[in-house]
Amino acid sequence: MEDCIFCKIVKKEVPCCKIYEDEKTIAFLDVNPVVIGHTLVVPKKHFTNVLDCEEEYLSAVMNTVKKISNHYLQKLNCQGINVLNASGKAAQQSVFHLHFHILPRYDNDNIDVFPKTKYIKEDLEKLSLLLRM
Amino acid sequence: MEDCIFCKIVKKEVPCCKIYEDEKTIAFLDVNPVVIGHTLVVPKKHFTNVLDCEEEYLSAVMNTVKKISNHYLQKLNCQGINVLNASGKAAQQSVFHLHFHILPRYDNDNIDVFPKTKYIKEDLEKLSLLLRM
Repeated sequence: MEDCIFCKIVKKEVPCCKIYEDEKTIAFLDVNPVVIGHTLVVPKKHFTNVLDCEEEYLSAVMNTVKKISNHYLQKLNCQGINVLNASGKAAQQSVFHLHFHILPRYDNDNIDVFPKTKYIKEDLEKLSLLLRM
Repeated sequence: MEDCIFCKIVKKEVPCCKIYEDEKTIAFLDVNPVVIGHTLVVPKKHFTNVLDCEEEYLSAVMNTVKKISNHYLQKLNCQGINVLNASGKAAQQSVFHLHFHILPRYDNDNIDVFPKTKYIKEDLEKLSLLLRM
């Protein structure tokens, strides 16, 4: 897609600090890392986010996420990995080409990826009936 | 796996507020929601996390994540979706059966899923050479 920075990276029109590439995916370091080794995994075909991504590309992206995660446990000596993804501006998506964030984690690194919200007193049973597919 | 709470949910030995189920996956509301509609998607076969999950189950789980995310945009009228995953205690994994968190998001909901860390001054080029696969 024209004017998409990640499409430009895929087409090598814009440089990146590449970690891995295969037929359907590419992975590179985030230019604004929140932890050391913060990596983005991207499908080579343009999709806005998870909501519109074709099954075969979503699978390919997750396989790359798995490969890199296992690789980082060795290479970075990290003890854990978070995978984060955002669909939509409301969810803090900033580049509108699907990407999964890989965040290497260490014991006692004082990072918290789970939102701290007040306990939500809701009727889960009732809600599940409303949402059930 | 014995003594795995999510395996017990899969086998219906423990109840859950179910949202969706197919051959390889099940999705249910998190009992400790951080947002309304906080949902977990789980493979029916036991894997510890992304690091050891078989390709076909990882794909199946992501397809379910996509289905539910699109469904929630309609049903919950949310404007975005975050998908979160943790591998390892250091990454805040608490149940050691693979699960993806789906978090419905709204404009200006004051939630932040990205860790706020000091800017990491690192040589990305050098790091990518170290990490390249």
